[in-house]
Amino acid sequence: MAARIYNFNPGPATLPLSVLEQVKAEFLDFKGSGMSISEVSHRSAVFEEMLNDAVARLKRLMNLSDTCKVLFLQGGASSQFFMVPMNLIPEGTTAEYVNTGSWSAKAIKETQILNKNHTVIASSQDRNYCYIPKNVAATPGAAYLHFTSNNTIEGTQWDAFPQANGVPLVSDMSSDILCRPFDPSPFGLIYAGAQKNLGPAGVTIVIIREDMLERVPKDIPTMLRYTTHAEKNSLYNTPPCIAIYMVQLVLKWIEDSFGNLEAVERRNRDKASLLYNFIDNSDFYRGTADPDSRSMMNVTFRLTDENLEKKFIAEATQSQLGGVKGHRSVGGCRASLYNAMDVEGVRSLVDFMKAFAAKNG
Amino acid sequence: MAARIYNFNPGPATLPLSVLEQVKAEFLDFKGSGMSISEVSHRSAVFEEMLNDAVARLKRLMNLSDTCKVLFLQGGASSQFFMVPMNLIPEGTTAEYVNTGSWSAKAIKETQILNKNHTVIASSQDRNYCYIPKNVAATPGAAYLHFTSNNTIEGTQWDAFPQANGVPLVSDMSSDILCRPFDPSPFGLIYAGAQKNLGPAGVTIVIIREDMLERVPKDIPTMLRYTTHAEKNSLYNTPPCIAIYMVQLVLKWIEDSFGNLEAVERRNRDKASLLYNFIDNSDFYRGTADPDSRSMMNVTFRLTDENLEKKFIAEATQSQLGGVKGHRSVGGCRASLYNAMDVEGVRSLVDFMKAFAAKNG
Repeated sequence: MAARIYNFNPGPATLPLSVLEQVKAEFLDFKGSGMSISEVSHRSAVFEEMLNDAVARLKRLMNLSDTCKVLFLQGGASSQFFMVPMNLIPEGTTAEYVNTGSWSAKAIKETQILNKNHTVIASSQDRNYCYIPKNVAATPGAAYLHFTSNNTIEGTQWDAFPQANGVPLVSDMSSDILCRPFDPSPFGLIYAGAQKNLGPAGVTIVIIREDMLERVPKDIPTMLRYTTHAEKNSLYNTPPCIAIYMVQLVLKWIEDSFGNLEAVERRNRDKASLLYNFIDNSDFYRGTADPDSRSMMNVTFRLTDENLEKKFIAEATQSQLGGVKGHRSVGGCRASLYNAMDVEGVRSLVDFMKAFAAKNG
Repeated sequence: MAARIYNFNPGPATLPLSVLEQVKAEFLDFKGSGMSISEVSHRSAVFEEMLNDAVARLKRLMNLSDTCKVLFLQGGASSQFFMVPMNLIPEGTTAEYVNTGSWSAKAIKETQILNKNHTVIASSQDRNYCYIPKNVAATPGAAYLHFTSNNTIEGTQWDAFPQANGVPLVSDMSSDILCRPFDPSPFGLIYAGAQKNLGPAGVTIVIIREDMLERVPKDIPTMLRYTTHAEKNSLYNTPPCIAIYMVQLVLKWIEDSFGNLEAVERRNRDKASLLYNFIDNSDFYRGTADPDSRSMMNVTFRLTDENLEKKFIAEATQSQLGGVKGHRSVGGCRASLYNAMDVEGVRSLVDFMKAFAAKNG
C-alpha cells in the first residue's frame, strides 16, 4: 500500500482522512442494515434520515433560513450552467452575469445557447481573469445576478460579494462553499459540485430559496425542474447515494472538528497566508492573481523561470505532494487548499518549494 | 456489525460481496496512488485506465461493435427519458414507443413535454401492464423505436425484442442489462441506470452507435448533447468517479466469475425458475405477470389472502430477507433477482415462503 500523499488537486480533491476511514469501516454494513451504503434503498428510513441529517447540518453551518431547500442533484455544476437560466429567467426579464473566468464564461455560454435574455455587467477578461471586478451591483429588476464566488483555474475569489439591490444573487460556489461564513439572505440560488469542499464527485448541492421555485416553467423536462426535486426531498428518482453519504460525513466532520465556519475560515486564512507570504518573499516564485483578489482555496503561481515548472511539478510529485500542476488552459502551478487540507500539508509544500528554489535558483 | 442480509431490493440492489470487499480494502489507496478513489483526479492516467477498462469489458461482454461509444453519464435513466427525444428525433420524423409499464410511460411523457413527434405503437396498459405485447414491429422510417426491456415494477420482460425493420431500437435496460446475451446490432442506443445489475446509484451507462451521434442538434445545452460526452470519453466534466470504479469492478466480477453472458443467463434462469415454480405450485401465492412475459429479474407476486402481505413482508425482513415489498404504486410483493443475487439467497426466500404458508395457510 502506498503512503498517503498530500493532495493539492483542484477537484476531485483531498478529503478528511477520518471520513475516508469511516466509509471504509462501515462499507459492508451501513448503520446496522446488513447492507452496504451502495446497496441500501434510497426509500429506506435509514437512508432518508442520513440525507435529512446532511440537510440539517448544511443549514446550520451556512445559517440558511427555513425558506431554503437543499437539493442533491446530479450532472455537476456544468448542468447548473443551463438549469439556472432554463428555470429562473421568466419571459421578459434579463439575467445579469459577471465574467471572472473559465467557469463563469461557460455559464454565460449556456445561457446564450438557450437564447435567454442576459447581460454581462462586469468582466475581468481584459487581464486574463487575474482579478475580481470592483463595485459590481445588480440592476434592480434583473432576473438574477450570477457570479462565480471562487475561480478555481485563475486563483481568484470574491471578497465582498456583488451588491444585490433586491435582485436574487445566484452563485457557483463549487470551489469555496463552506470555506467561510457569509450572509445567505440575498441569495436566490447557490450551487456547488461536491468534489472540492463537500465530498466526492457525483453530487451537486443546490440551495434554492422557495420564492425562486415559483418561477420554474412547467414545459421543461421533469428532471430539469427544480420543483421536481424540491417537492420530493431529492428523492424523485434514485439519487447518488454514496456521494450524499460522504457529503453527510464531511459536514459532520466540519461541525465536530471546527464547530462553525468562522473557525474554518481562520484555518483557511492561515494556510493561504503561509503559502502566499512565502511566494511574495521569494524571487523564484510569483503569484498570478492580483493580491486583493487572491483565492484562499486555489493558490496559482509561476516559477520566474517558467522552463523549470515541469521539473518542479515532477519533483513535487516524487516528494508526495500531488496535483500542483496548473490547469491545462493556463499552465503554471496551482496548489488547492480546500477545507480538508491541513496546515502540515501546506508547510510541507512550502518546505519543498524552499528546497527546490535553493537547488535550482 | 449486523449480519449481511439477502437483499431483494429493486435498486439500489445487492452487489457482489467480493466487489464490496475490494472497495473496502483499497478505499484509502486507489491503485498505489496514495489517494482514495474519491480523491483521485478524473484527469489522471490511473483513473482513465480504469474507465477504459470498464468500457472494454462492457464491449466484450455485450459483443458491441467498434462503432459504439460507451458513456458514463449522470441523472439516472430518468434523464435519458428526455435526452433521447431531445437528441434523436430529427425535424420531420416520428419516434415510436411501446408502453409496457410505469417507466415506459414516463419516457413517453417526457417526449410529450418536449413536444416531439411520437406514437405509441403498442401498449399493455389495458391489463395493468401484466404482459409484453406480441409481434411489435417498427415502422420503416421512424426515428427510433423505444421500449423498456424489463419492467421492474410490473415484473415483465421482453423475450424476443421488437422487430426493427431497419429502425434503430432504443431501450431502457436499467433493470436487465447484462442478464443475458443478445444481438446489439439493431440498437441505436441502450441506456441503464447502474443501480441494479451494474453497480451503485449515481451513474448511467449510455451505449450509442456512432451514426446516432450525427443527429444530435447543436442548439441544446452542452451537457445534454451525447456528442459532448462521446467526444471526451465521458470526461467533459468531472464524472461520478466512485460509481464508475464500482461498475468496473462489477464488470470484472462478471468476467472472472462467469466468463460470458450465456453463463450469467443460465444462473439467472435457474434462480427465477426456482421461485416461479414454487409460486406456481402453491395455492398460497400467485404470480402477477402472464407466464410468457415473466421477468427473470423482478418476480412480482401476491398472497392469495392479500391481508397477510404486510405480515409476510415484516417477517421476511426479520428473517434477513430484505426488500420483498412491491412498488408502492402496485402493492403486493416482489423479489428482485439481479445478477449479484446468488442461488442460495433464492433458496432461503423459498424456504421462508414455504414456512410462512405452512404457518398461515
